[in-house]
Parts: sequence; C-alpha cells; structure tokens
Amino acid sequence: MNYKAVLNILGRILQVEAGLMLLPVIVALVYKETPIYFLIVIAALLLCGTLLTVLTKTNGNGKKIFAREGFLIVALSWVFMSVFGCLPFVISKTIPSFVDAFFETVSGFTTTGASILSDLDGMMKSLLFWRSFTHWIGGMGVLVFIMAVLPMANSRSVHIIRAETTGPTKGGKLVPKMRSTATILYGIYFGLTIIETILLLLGGMTFFEAITYTFGTAGTGGFVISNAGIAGFGSDYILIVIGVFMFLFGVNFNIYYAVLLGNVKEFFKNEENRWYMSIVGGATLLITLNVISMFANFGKALVVSFFNVSSIMTTTGFTIVDFTKWPYFSQYILVMLMLCGACAGSTGGGLKISRLVIVYKTIKRNIKSMLRPNQVEVIRLNGVVLDETSVRSTQNFFCIFVLLIIASAFFVSLDGYDTTTTLTATISCLCNIGPGLSLVGPAGNFSIFSDPVKLLLAFDMLMGRLELYPIIMLFIPAAWRRR
Amino acid sequence: MNYKAVLNILGRILQVEAGLMLLPVIVALVYKETPIYFLIVIAALLLCGTLLTVLTKTNGNGKKIFAREGFLIVALSWVFMSVFGCLPFVISKTIPSFVDAFFETVSGFTTTGASILSDLDGMMKSLLFWRSFTHWIGGMGVLVFIMAVLPMANSRSVHIIRAETTGPTKGGKLVPKMRSTATILYGIYFGLTIIETILLLLGGMTFFEAITYTFGTAGTGGFVISNAGIAGFGSDYILIVIGVFMFLFGVNFNIYYAVLLGNVKEFFKNEENRWYMSIVGGATLLITLNVISMFANFGKALVVSFFNVSSIMTTTGFTIVDFTKWPYFSQYILVMLMLCGACAGSTGGGLKISRLVIVYKTIKRNIKSMLRPNQVEVIRLNGVVLDETSVRSTQNFFCIFVLLIIASAFFVSLDGYDTTTTLTATISCLCNIGPGLSLVGPAGNFSIFSDPVKLLLAFDMLMGRLELYPIIMLFIPAAWRRR
Repeated sequence: MNYKAVLNILGRILQVEAGLMLLPVIVALVYKETPIYFLIVIAALLLCGTLLTVLTKTNGNGKKIFAREGFLIVALSWVFMSVFGCLPFVISKTIPSFVDAFFETVSGFTTTGASILSDLDGMMKSLLFWRSFTHWIGGMGVLVFIMAVLPMANSRSVHIIRAETTGPTKGGKLVPKMRSTATILYGIYFGLTIIETILLLLGGMTFFEAITYTFGTAGTGGFVISNAGIAGFGSDYILIVIGVFMFLFGVNFNIYYAVLLGNVKEFFKNEENRWYMSIVGGATLLITLNVISMFANFGKALVVSFFNVSSIMTTTGFTIVDFTKWPYFSQYILVMLMLCGACAGSTGGGLKISRLVIVYKTIKRNIKSMLRPNQVEVIRLNGVVLDETSVRSTQNFFCIFVLLIIASAFFVSLDGYDTTTTLTATISCLCNIGPGLSLVGPAGNFSIFSDPVKLLLAFDMLMGRLELYPIIMLFIPAAWRRR
Repeated sequence: MNYKAVLNILGRILQVEAGLMLLPVIVALVYKETPIYFLIVIAALLLCGTLLTVLTKTNGNGKKIFAREGFLIVALSWVFMSVFGCLPFVISKTIPSFVDAFFETVSGFTTTGASILSDLDGMMKSLLFWRSFTHWIGGMGVLVFIMAVLPMANSRSVHIIRAETTGPTKGGKLVPKMRSTATILYGIYFGLTIIETILLLLGGMTFFEAITYTFGTAGTGGFVISNAGIAGFGSDYILIVIGVFMFLFGVNFNIYYAVLLGNVKEFFKNEENRWYMSIVGGATLLITLNVISMFANFGKALVVSFFNVSSIMTTTGFTIVDFTKWPYFSQYILVMLMLCGACAGSTGGGLKISRLVIVYKTIKRNIKSMLRPNQVEVIRLNGVVLDETSVRSTQNFFCIFVLLIIASAFFVSLDGYDTTTTLTATISCLCNIGPGLSLVGPAGNFSIFSDPVKLLLAFDMLMGRLELYPIIMLFIPAAWRRR
C-alpha cells in the first residue's frame, strides 16, 4: 500500500470539498442567512487537507497507484467527505445528532435520498442547498471530478476512476485517456443539469427550486426542499420534465458521448439501453393498468406511473404519491425495479441492468454447457465478447449483493419493525433509492431506526454507491499491507 | 435424447407407484374404509406403466443414459407421479379440484408440506396415510429407490441418482457403486424411520399417528393428520423426539454411512455438519432470548424455539405455535433459515448449507484475487479441493435460485396479497418448507391463492426439490433433441 499517495489524494479531496462548500456560503449570503457554519467547516477542511497534502508531498509517487490504492482512496474519500460534510448540520443544530447528520449526508453523497428529517419547511436555505448539492457531487463522483479539473501527472488514475464509476465493465472504450474522459463526462453532466434547470424555470419554479430539484434529479438522489415536495407544484409539466430527466440521468453517459460524436443510433441500438427502455415502458404500462381506478383518467395514471417507475428504477426516489397505498402488485414491481437499478455508467444505483443481463447470459451459458460440456461459449454484451474475469466477477457481485441484503436486514430487524419495512429499508439504502415500503414509504422516514441501524444503513449506502469492493477492501487486512 | 430409455424407466416408476399405493389400500382395509379410489388409480398406473415398459423394451439400451436423459427421467417421473398420486383425492372428492389435489400431492412428494386443506379431522385415514406417505417417498427420492430395488444392468444410473439427490457435489465418494449406494441410503433411511416410530409410540402416540408423523419428519415434509397437529399431543417428549429427528434427517446421509463404518468423529468433524450444528444452536439461542417473555420459563421457550428452528431449517415445516405472532426479529431469522436449508445429501430442501459455504468461499477467493491477480487459489470443502466446474455451477445455482424467487413472487403478487405473504409463500414452496409468514403462516394455508398461482407454486416446489436443473431442462429445446 502506497500510503503517501493515498493520503495525498485524500488531502486534495478535502481541499476540493472546502471549495465546493463556497456555494452554500454564497446561498447563505443571498438569502441573508449566516454562513458561519459553513465557514467553520471550510476552515477545518482546508487545514486538514493542506496538512495531508504538504506532509505527503513527494515526487513521482503518483505512478505507484494500483487497484488497491484506488479502492482505498475512494473508500476513505467518501467516508471523510461525509464526516466533514455533515458538520454544518450538526454545528447549526439543524440535525443535532452526529449519527443522524452523518446518515443524511451519506444519503446525500451516495445519491440515496433517504432522510431522517420530517420537517423541511423551517430549514435554512443554505443547508437545504448543501443537502441537495451533495447529490450532484456524489452523482458523478468527486474523484472523477478531481481527475477532470486538477493537474495530476498520473497515468494510473484509471484505478481511481474505475473504483468510483459504476457498472460491470468499468471505463470501457473511454479508458485510455482518463483525464479527457473525466472532462467529457462532467461536461455532459453539466450540460444536462443546465438544460433541466432551464426547463424547470420555464415551468414556474424559482431559481433556487429549479437548481436544487435538478441536483436531486441529476445525481439520481431524491432529496426535496419542502414538506410538500414535487407534488406541491401541482404541475404535470414539472412531473414530466423531472420524470424524463430522471430517465435521462439513468442512461450510460458513454452513450451520450457517442451521440455527441454523431452516433445518435447508439441510443436505440445499445443493448443495455434497449433493456432499460423496455423495462421502464413495461413497468409503466403494468402499473398504469393496475392503479388506473385510483386516478381521474388514463393520462393522469400514466404520468404518475411513469414518474414513479422512472424515479425508482433510476434510484432517484422522488415521490409524488404514497405508493404504499397502491395494490401490492404495483408495489412488488417497484421492489423489483429497486433491485434492478439503472444503466452502468450512469449516476443511478442498484445492481445495474447490464450486470443482470450478464448474470442471465451466464446462467444460460452454464446450463447449455451441462448438455454439451465440450463446447465453450463466450458471452457478449452489446456485441462485444466479455472476458471470463468480468463474467465471473459479475456473478460474484450479484452473490455478494444478495447476501449483503440478507445479512444487513438481519441486523435491521433487531429494531423490531415489520419484515417489509426491514427488507425494503435495507434494499432502498443498498440500492441508493431513498424510500422503501411500509414504514419507510413516501409518508414515513428513516428516523424510526436506532443509531447502530442508521450507521449500518449508511454503510450499505456507501457499499451500494461504490459498488461493494472499495468498502470491502477496508475490512481486508491484506489490502492495507505495505508493498 | 434416448426416448426409449426415458419412457421405459418412466413406465417402471408408474409400476412402482402402483406398488406403493398398496399400503394405503391396506390402511383402508384396516380402518374399514373403501379402498376403491386407490384400486382404480393402481389399475391405471399398472396399465400405463406396463404399456410404456413393454412398448419401449430393447436390449442394452440402458447404457445410453447420459446427463440429459437423467434430468428428463427425473423431471417427468416426478410430474407424472404427482398427476397419478393426486387422483385418489380427486376421485374420492376429498379434494374435488384437480389443481388443488395436484398442489397437495406435489407438496407431498417434494416434502414441502404446504397445504390447501383447512379441515383434516373428517378425512379418511387411508387418504391421510397416503398424503403423509408421499413425504417419505419423496424424501429420499423414488428413483434412488428404484435403483436400490430393481435389477437394472445399468452402469449409467449415476446420472439418474445425481439428478435426484441434493447438494452441490453430488454422489461424492459413494458414486462408484451406485446400486449399493442407493441400498445403503435407503437402509439408513429405513433404520431412522423405525427408530423414530418406536420412540413416538413410547410417547403415547397410536401406531397410525407415530408412522404418519415419522413420514412427515423423515421426508422433512411437514403434513400433519389432524387440525390440532403436533401441539395437540401437549407433550414435550414428543416435541423433543420430533425436533431431534427433524435435525437428524437434515444431516448428510453420507455422514451416517461413515458413522456406520465406525468413523463416528465424522459427525462432528465434517465441515458442513459443523456449520449445521452451529446455525441450529445459534438460531435457537437467539430466538429463545427473543421470545422468552411469551413462555412460562426458559426451558419451555428453549424447547419451542429448538423445535421451530429444527423444523424450518430442515425445511420440514411442522408448526406448534403461530410464529407470525413472534417478534419480527425471530420471524426474520426463520426466513433466513428457510433460504439456507439443511445439509446436502439429506432429505431437506433450501439452498443447502454446503452450497452457501462454497458461495461464501468463492466470494472471498475472488476478492482476494483482485489484490493478487496472479495468484490462483483453490476452494476446499471439508478439506477436499473442489474443481472449478463445481465452484462455478454452485454460484450459478445461487443466482438462478435468487432470480427464481424474485420472478415467481412477481406472478404470485398478481393475487394481490401483501408483500410478506407473496414473498414467503414463494420462498416456502421453492425451499420445500411448508408454512411462510403473514397469511401463509402456521394459522393460514395456501387455499387463498388462485389456480394459476397454485400451479406456479407447485412448479417452484419441483424446482426446489429437484434442484432446478431437471425441471429447467424440460424447457430447453436442445435438451429434447435426438442424438
């Protein structure tokens, strides 16, 4: 383990977080709130960050970053960003309990959107802004951001980006030029963010509302900024804009890159995207038919169903109705969408569609090989042959994911809530959704859980967002060993 | 596909089933009931069975049985045995609906024990006997039975036994001499059955009660023969005898073989068995502590907890209390035990402990290999190195199992019951348990479901008992193709 390099990058992360916290300071000044809470934390971040980078300064050390350093950097960065990120809530006594504030901030950065807050209407604008802004930061990943903006003579930064981005085949074609990749990804992210903000402004939102809801959409997070939430606008236009943009942020960003390069067909030809569109379409139709009697007409039922399907499948978690009152068939579909999640390389969570497609194809291949043991078949995704390491590690990922849900729910069940609450709270956090069913449905929140369970659920959120391995490595002694 | 050989063995199975049905005929005569329903079905079985064997008679054909024929024979045998086996219930109008009777009989043969009957007290003794007897037949497997008793000059019968026995590494050391293996297994099965029957007689049961409850225990089935069930005896002695024997029938029978050969230590040294004992012990302790306030004293809580843990983990499904009234923590432990199941090579269902151990070790190995990509580690179970095909197929099994639960529950949810009912009914059937939680808990039963859902659940029971592949092969065109 190259500790110097790890701590050096961790220091830079804290400096960057200090920079990002200047935005809520501006918000505080605009709305005539005190920026002191943020200024204190910015000072702390700069102090710690600068100390770390100065103390670990060496030449050419950057080249010694391999997979394990990548994992460790990402895991530690996310934990420390959340620890510092929650301090404005604690210092301002908006969320007096550190565990609650940490839960809320991890929920923000991991783009989960599960909240322990029951009353948002009295909250300071600067804190609401920071809370939603964490979604936007976490959506694309802060390390990807650093790769994009900071000078880093580092041919090995690939391991860092790999550990932070989502999906079974990380990086893909974009890998060779990591810095320009990161810049392109953030460019697309920025572009879509601006377009959505403008569209929401056109729908009658204030700039503050438009930007915070866009943060929630872009990161597929799901925090709202008022008790009434999105339903409070009473506007189908807003539902449709947010519904469509949630869907768009669930698409693999590499596809947008292809589209920008003129290959528009890729959007409709890409295998994962075809599955994505089919599942969203199919689930919307099934739920619409199932809930139609609860709405004025087919159109309204369709819009609400689409919004919910898009919100849950992309793991955003914005809610406009209490779907725990829907028929159980629709609720079960939502649980399936939670587990499935969006596309690899998007800002969404869950297992990811391409991973499920690979697991399915692997199962099929292995069953066939029972009939013809001597025939070896390859597995293709989007026409490209996958190497057997990817295939095996995808099945591995699936197994860990399932066992983690079962094991986490065991500890969550100690709090004594019904099985549906226990199970969907766990799934919701691990898949970075936000709401679950029963007591953690749209009408409830996560304040019902005890502190140890909240910490466990925060851990699950990090596991889900960073796709297991970086966090797992924290618990493996061999990963910490010096080379 | 060697159709002649498949149909020939299927014919023999039907003849054997005719023979097995002579037992309920005797019961009918003893209790002065009419044996006519069974006699009609026996005639039908003999006719179909003999036709099949005569029409497909060839010389030396038996040698052409490979894996795919083994799968097909087993799958078809279980389906047809259930179709014929349910006819006495239909003809006697005890269960007028064919779908209900089929569900009940599949539940019997697969040793699930899920029932659609709400009133057993008025039922004919011969039918009650047959219902419990199906557990005993299905527990060890009817094809294993045939291998043991019928002359079959067939060196390839290994594929049939493999397709019917349970666990990730089928056959193991006992493989080379399949016929004597089958005889030994059935010998142990018989021996334990006799011992339990005697112990239950000593506890004050009538012979009819003792033998039917032993059938339910031995097959890890769970059908009872009265509305009051086992709790009706009001005897801790009976609870303990049945509790212990459920546990014993959940042990890998190869261990008993080793013990018979003088290697008593194997019972405590075997890796899977150590896990088995630890899980039963741990779960019993946790549940006892969780429910202690509901019982008169620690001893009573311990006995009841042990009985329930043993019943659920071995996938028997006998119930003596309504555990849906227990704290959710205990209920969740029971769900985990359902999924886990008993040992490979036992009569129990579920994923099987050894399979979970292999999945866990594979995960660990694959994570380690991310740190040291050039180091290849083998996976051992009970000290023996597993070949990579077994390792891969075990992970594959796990993935199919999980996806099957999710997909089946989707269709079950169409019936509109709550998520806990839907999910635990599916798990209960796939893992061959019997009861679930909520509406399918000890106080409820499976008659609430629609016919299509009952058929799906029966399908899940067969999938679970035959460990997926034989039934899956039925749906793969390539498996049916002539060589």
